[in-house]
Amino acid sequence: MTYKEPIHDVAQLAHVEMYSPDVDATVGFFRDLLGMSVSGRDGNSVHMRAYEDYYVRSLTITHRDKPGLGHIGWRSSSPQALERRAAAIEKTGLGRGWIDGDTGHGRAYQFETPDGHKNRIFWDVEYFQCPDAESSCLINRPQRRPLQGVPVRRIDHVNIMASNVTKTKTFYEEALGFRTRENILLENGAIEAGAWMSTTPQVHEIACMLDRSGAKGRFHHVAFWYGSPQHLSDIGDVFSERGIKIEAGPGKHGISQALFMYVYEPGGNRVELFGDSGYLIFDPAWKCRTWTEQNLEKGIIFYGSPVPQEFFLYGTPDVPMPAAAQAAE
Amino acid sequence: MTYKEPIHDVAQLAHVEMYSPDVDATVGFFRDLLGMSVSGRDGNSVHMRAYEDYYVRSLTITHRDKPGLGHIGWRSSSPQALERRAAAIEKTGLGRGWIDGDTGHGRAYQFETPDGHKNRIFWDVEYFQCPDAESSCLINRPQRRPLQGVPVRRIDHVNIMASNVTKTKTFYEEALGFRTRENILLENGAIEAGAWMSTTPQVHEIACMLDRSGAKGRFHHVAFWYGSPQHLSDIGDVFSERGIKIEAGPGKHGISQALFMYVYEPGGNRVELFGDSGYLIFDPAWKCRTWTEQNLEKGIIFYGSPVPQEFFLYGTPDVPMPAAAQAAE
Amino acid sequence: MTYKEPIHDVAQLAHVEMYSPDVDATVGFFRDLLGMSVSGRDGNSVHMRAYEDYYVRSLTITHRDKPGLGHIGWRSSSPQALERRAAAIEKTGLGRGWIDGDTGHGRAYQFETPDGHKNRIFWDVEYFQCPDAESSCLINRPQRRPLQGVPVRRIDHVNIMASNVTKTKTFYEEALGFRTRENILLENGAIEAGAWMSTTPQVHEIACMLDRSGAKGRFHHVAFWYGSPQHLSDIGDVFSERGIKIEAGPGKHGISQALFMYVYEPGGNRVELFGDSGYLIFDPAWKCRTWTEQNLEKGIIFYGSPVPQEFFLYGTPDVPMPAAAQAAE
Amino acid sequence: MTYKEPIHDVAQLAHVEMYSPDVDATVGFFRDLLGMSVSGRDGNSVHMRAYEDYYVRSLTITHRDKPGLGHIGWRSSSPQALERRAAAIEKTGLGRGWIDGDTGHGRAYQFETPDGHKNRIFWDVEYFQCPDAESSCLINRPQRRPLQGVPVRRIDHVNIMASNVTKTKTFYEEALGFRTRENILLENGAIEAGAWMSTTPQVHEIACMLDRSGAKGRFHHVAFWYGSPQHLSDIGDVFSERGIKIEAGPGKHGISQALFMYVYEPGGNRVELFGDSGYLIFDPAWKCRTWTEQNLEKGIIFYGSPVPQEFFLYGTPDVPMPAAAQAAE
Repeated sequence: MTYKEPIHDVAQLAHVEMYSPDVDATVGFFRDLLGMSVSGRDGNSVHMRAYEDYYVRSLTITHRDKPGLGHIGWRSSSPQALERRAAAIEKTGLGRGWIDGDTGHGRAYQFETPDGHKNRIFWDVEYFQCPDAESSCLINRPQRRPLQGVPVRRIDHVNIMASNVTKTKTFYEEALGFRTRENILLENGAIEAGAWMSTTPQVHEIACMLDRSGAKGRFHHVAFWYGSPQHLSDIGDVFSERGIKIEAGPGKHGISQALFMYVYEPGGNRVELFGDSGYLIFDPAWKCRTWTEQNLEKGIIFYGSPVPQEFFLYGTPDVPMPAAAQAAE
Repeated sequence: MTYKEPIHDVAQLAHVEMYSPDVDATVGFFRDLLGMSVSGRDGNSVHMRAYEDYYVRSLTITHRDKPGLGHIGWRSSSPQALERRAAAIEKTGLGRGWIDGDTGHGRAYQFETPDGHKNRIFWDVEYFQCPDAESSCLINRPQRRPLQGVPVRRIDHVNIMASNVTKTKTFYEEALGFRTRENILLENGAIEAGAWMSTTPQVHEIACMLDRSGAKGRFHHVAFWYGSPQHLSDIGDVFSERGIKIEAGPGKHGISQALFMYVYEPGGNRVELFGDSGYLIFDPAWKCRTWTEQNLEKGIIFYGSPVPQEFFLYGTPDVPMPAAAQAAE
Repeated sequence: MTYKEPIHDVAQLAHVEMYSPDVDATVGFFRDLLGMSVSGRDGNSVHMRAYEDYYVRSLTITHRDKPGLGHIGWRSSSPQALERRAAAIEKTGLGRGWIDGDTGHGRAYQFETPDGHKNRIFWDVEYFQCPDAESSCLINRPQRRPLQGVPVRRIDHVNIMASNVTKTKTFYEEALGFRTRENILLENGAIEAGAWMSTTPQVHEIACMLDRSGAKGRFHHVAFWYGSPQHLSDIGDVFSERGIKIEAGPGKHGISQALFMYVYEPGGNRVELFGDSGYLIFDPAWKCRTWTEQNLEKGIIFYGSPVPQEFFLYGTPDVPMPAAAQAAE
Repeated sequence: MTYKEPIHDVAQLAHVEMYSPDVDATVGFFRDLLGMSVSGRDGNSVHMRAYEDYYVRSLTITHRDKPGLGHIGWRSSSPQALERRAAAIEKTGLGRGWIDGDTGHGRAYQFETPDGHKNRIFWDVEYFQCPDAESSCLINRPQRRPLQGVPVRRIDHVNIMASNVTKTKTFYEEALGFRTRENILLENGAIEAGAWMSTTPQVHEIACMLDRSGAKGRFHHVAFWYGSPQHLSDIGDVFSERGIKIEAGPGKHGISQALFMYVYEPGGNRVELFGDSGYLIFDPAWKCRTWTEQNLEKGIIFYGSPVPQEFFLYGTPDVPMPAAAQAAE
């Protein structure tokens, strides 16, 4: 039997668009506290980036009445890879056609997850051109470290909630070439409660958690990366002094071995700050690690701050939670 | 013109074999101070691994009169990738034929760099089977954190010295699919003094530095990974108290943005401890960053401990340095 | 009116004696995981110290059926200071007379808190004589950093539970010269729920928390000092992998600004690991900071892991908790 | 023979006044990069403080043609302690009389070291009144953590250069009650090259280094405290990107066990950033640790960045260095 070779067509998570009912406050949160900068505005949208993000945007804040996910932007590994993925997605019936381009990128193919989360993939990107006053002496760095807040370094991953994790996971695996690195199976495998997927040695560029609310297409969080544990303490100090609600952390997940902190930005979306380097997967034959009721406790918290029940229930937009869902937790 | 797609056939640096004139002392260094464990012995060789290395060996210490590099072991991305790379190497004339297997891996294709550094590539590997007493509660971790020394987590990269960096670099690029992430060009490009290459988002799995001694095939260092800056302080404390020579560090290179510490193990080889997460390259169209006389000072030291002249001259085995080479530094 | 000058007669917390029903397991915890060493044994007691403790013991583990506090040992600032404090304590009626000496110290005056916690104070101490094999190259360090576990550096403070915090606090202030740096007053000052006291710039060498169980003389915890946040992550990893119950942490108290972790040693006593430098009080006119219902939430947790209810209820020896006490929390 | 009891009359280093030929640039350095704030201006002076300094000033920048030390401000432990010290200093002939008060403090007694460094001591201080917008939720903290730069927490110590270290040290010991914690004796004790003195458990509030230039009254550095190693990396990154000269660090001294970084502020004075908690001395009978040629190498650098020769020669104001002094290093 022939060994099935991995697909390397998706290179990276390029950006996330998030809705906010209070764009100014949301932008202020990312700019003043997390040291990100505004790189442009279009209509109701503000584009931002962290100082080690190479393209003009890694985060877009768009005005809507309710918080939630706008879309997820992926960069392909080559022009050919883009065509291959568009063709593969097309076959699933979840393709939503091409656009000529948008702020920060060129021609893009749009698609949805089985749950309706909007995505797009593109090859051409616009690189950030650093103003001289902020340019770095390091030629591998797109901008020097800002003096504002406790600056995050780059976008890390996105986490979505889905009514059916398995369908969502399978879609990303088959149509896009993601590999599932870890997942949660409950009730003897009857329920897939979460999946962590990547196309790089990172454990995840995208994760999907079970939405027990009956809603579809909801957003769990976007994560920005520090890589240094002390910065979670620094930003925790800042958040606590400034009325930003810390939902959980610092704590260490067993799943993905991430040193995490979860907070709510003023628009109501959850944001994760990633505080260390986690672990990297170089083994090309990596077998998905499956957490079950037997080992899940350490999977969720290896040490440090626990996560409250709302972590498993709350997504944006917020919806009433059926009693059954709460009981299930 | 068609965009040339990247090759993804080499998945990772699997192991490094190092020569030591004093195997017991060298093994003691890695075991007692760096918390690595011995996983087997063959003839004059001792196989070791760090607690987050998934295979049975990431480091082999073999007895020889002089320190130096034994060979470098690479894992391919698939069985097919192995055949493709073997075929491509064969064409360069640097192939040295197949072996049936060796400790920790199966059938392997052997080859040399233009400078004579021995390498091999293989697909099948033997995974580390953790004894119950050391098994982790984390299913994504091959072994729990040891209580001995300041334990390193995994092998990170290897650095070799070559009489001609450009030839060595081009060989890894063309025959193996490495991408050069950063390099040093001096004298208006006449001299390539170093190159950092990877097949993953890491800046390097292998680096090559110019050997000005006239020797060939020498070894600069192997690096093990902590990922946490504090651990460089901890191991620096341990080294300083126990007569281990710290050549340089902690300090931060601009090149690769690595928080480094370089020491000599008792056999005479240089070892690097990697103390943070550096930066990762997800951009599939990354252009090699070239350091020159104009910016190299920050490239070598962004902040922290400088590196002494011997860092650029000393490799193993040690050789007399021509006066011209010293003057060139 | 004349300004009342501070008393400087108590120099430091020298040691704590703790009871354990399983001395071997308790000693193993401090030796194998926290890197402390055994410096001697007397009858049912084992004496230990951390590598930066200058005297022969900072912790004594003594066999008893139930865990709890043996006694607290204080060092005076001078021989004269010892006599002054003995005289002052004598007047309170809580003196228990002199002993000629004990392991690690000379002539000592014994006394009890109003709640019956045993204490002693002495001037002469026995300094640790480091064996050559463990001696440090730093002449200001009593022993080099051990290679075992995640080694704590020194004893930091002791925390006791009392049926009446105010009486206990006042005793330490008046008879011994402690200054109360922070306290908790609830119900408009009717209930003093905790007090943090020191004779040095540290926020506390001793703290006292309200015991709502009706018991007297119980022990809350002894704290050992890391001073580096990473070490709490390291030891948290170790504890989680080895079945040691982490009660809470890492987290940051507002009170004392300590980065804490609380665990149970195998004998049942709570132990704190102190993970940063907190803050120091140099202001000689420092006014005790009083936390009340209005600000206590941040006082208990500034950020990071919350503490569970048992933190406020459990002490050693364990006692049944009246329903009223639980409701009060 | 009676044991000589320690004097506890000097409570803390309250502030340092520094001269700068470019006050705006110097203030900008402390404000923009180190997150300090301006609390007032008088004539040619700007008063600043770090966010955990409790009084209105810990640093004053005064315009002069050349950089150097203005004066050092000490707070006494009580009003009585102030009178006792004034009387003791008076007897040495180094007293310079009382002043009624100055910005941030009340009646003060002025004096000079044998080398002419200006000092003053006072009891009454003006506490910083925090504007509501910057007030902390922690009642033990005078101001919340700023969002600007990599904010230092508080003043730590001052370091002066003297033509005769022994005389300077003896003056601080005898007239002010400092205890010498560590010193350097060279040439069989003929030359005292440095002394570290404190009146608290810190290793030093003041240090004195030998000035081999023939000059008198020069300033070596003032140190501000981070307490967290990561912050030295953060500020090292900032300095390197912004053209601030890092003289040395991060590195760990054996002497005082400080994790240090030394930089030049734009006015030309050396500033130290203190990156960890060092060690604290609670032993009331502490014997001064003497470093000599035999162990000084580790005393100066335990691990990490070395210090260059200029560290031992350069002070402010700068003076030409006699050839003999340079040879002596």
